[in-house]
Amino acid sequence: MNKKATKTAGILGGMGPEATARFFELIIKNTAAAVDQEHLRIIIYNFPQIPDRTRAVLYGGENPVPWMVTGLKVLEKAGAELVAIPCLTAHYFLPELRRRSRLPLLDLVAETVRWTTSSLPGLKTVGLLATEGTVATRIFHKAFARRRVRLLEPSAAGQKKIMEAIYGRKGIKAGFTGSGPARLLQEAARELINRGTEAIIAGCTEIPLVLKPDRLPLPLIDPMNIGARALIVKAGGRVREQPLP
Amino acid sequence: MNKKATKTAGILGGMGPEATARFFELIIKNTAAAVDQEHLRIIIYNFPQIPDRTRAVLYGGENPVPWMVTGLKVLEKAGAELVAIPCLTAHYFLPELRRRSRLPLLDLVAETVRWTTSSLPGLKTVGLLATEGTVATRIFHKAFARRRVRLLEPSAAGQKKIMEAIYGRKGIKAGFTGSGPARLLQEAARELINRGTEAIIAGCTEIPLVLKPDRLPLPLIDPMNIGARALIVKAGGRVREQPLP
Repeated sequence: MNKKATKTAGILGGMGPEATARFFELIIKNTAAAVDQEHLRIIIYNFPQIPDRTRAVLYGGENPVPWMVTGLKVLEKAGAELVAIPCLTAHYFLPELRRRSRLPLLDLVAETVRWTTSSLPGLKTVGLLATEGTVATRIFHKAFARRRVRLLEPSAAGQKKIMEAIYGRKGIKAGFTGSGPARLLQEAARELINRGTEAIIAGCTEIPLVLKPDRLPLPLIDPMNIGARALIVKAGGRVREQPLP
Repeated sequence: MNKKATKTAGILGGMGPEATARFFELIIKNTAAAVDQEHLRIIIYNFPQIPDRTRAVLYGGENPVPWMVTGLKVLEKAGAELVAIPCLTAHYFLPELRRRSRLPLLDLVAETVRWTTSSLPGLKTVGLLATEGTVATRIFHKAFARRRVRLLEPSAAGQKKIMEAIYGRKGIKAGFTGSGPARLLQEAARELINRGTEAIIAGCTEIPLVLKPDRLPLPLIDPMNIGARALIVKAGGRVREQPLP
């Protein structure tokens, strides 16, 4: 890999930190490299003080945009040439971030829709497991609707289980990545399957930390893996040939 | 966690990328935080183009110091206030790096010796699994000798197995973290155990990626875990109470 031919990738992280670490790992695992030197230059700003995105979207919590703009400035100063944000709810703010930063920002929602519709042609219905914030933003609904794919969201009961799995006292954000949150997410997925979904989007960066594809009878689409591969390509790196989940 | 009370931690990474990702994960896992906002601000520069440290120490390969200084400048510009380098062989160059950068640099070798001698009082002999480069630098030998602990290094045959596990065509740096490299490392460890070592230092950042403590009949000391906890403390964060490996 020629140093000049590749761009320095930036990651605006900390939303949450676990998801940021996993995204970094996915970039490394998806890069075709036999020695260290063939990997990409990456600058990560883990900035967990950025106010909660779900709270901002749903409950009038503090606006995270000025914090994210500060984070993007740090990445720009450090030499990042394109940036990914491993938090899907944060993508609601992408148009505003694009107005306020010169850095090219990868759109993980758009990349996910592109990958899904080209890999599963003829797909009519896709289910979404995500935070209340992401569901409320309707970012996935709108992006899939443009490709004439209908998005199924969980019932109120299913959504409650997802939130408990992510934000609960024994949830993923509190460091629990065992069977407790996994069971809750499987129950929410089961409901979507019974209602006829043909694939499921792991629409929150925390979900694939505990929900594994082999526990589901249909494709589990991971926007983080798709995003990691898209970032490698856009930075000029070489993607490892392997099937996406 | 008060924003002003904590420092922004920096990680000079990419040596190798997998070890950097794991070190980042260890910081997150070892931080006492119930919500994202209680985690530390961290800037990571994954800079895998830094020339191989082992090659520089042993075979007159390109000097990595100017590259590492460039990396430290990137971290400084981005606002890092103290820096850890998750590559033990790179610690050979720490005195020179300290002369050429104003950033406080965490010494993972010193932290490891401090933790080991205080956690295992009366320890007489410790074994080292590390790259040829780290063994040749004698950084662990010297640091343990100061505390009157004797360091055992593997025989030439054992060392060859370690290098194959790390650098081999099916080694850790090529993305293989399964039973192949694990078996080679266990054989090298077995030799040190037979020669009377009382504990083993996982002296290369890649080793704990495949060698698990429960496969050994004595303590496996992981400088990366010790370093992650030391970095949290020095940055003003709260360490999660749990036993170190």
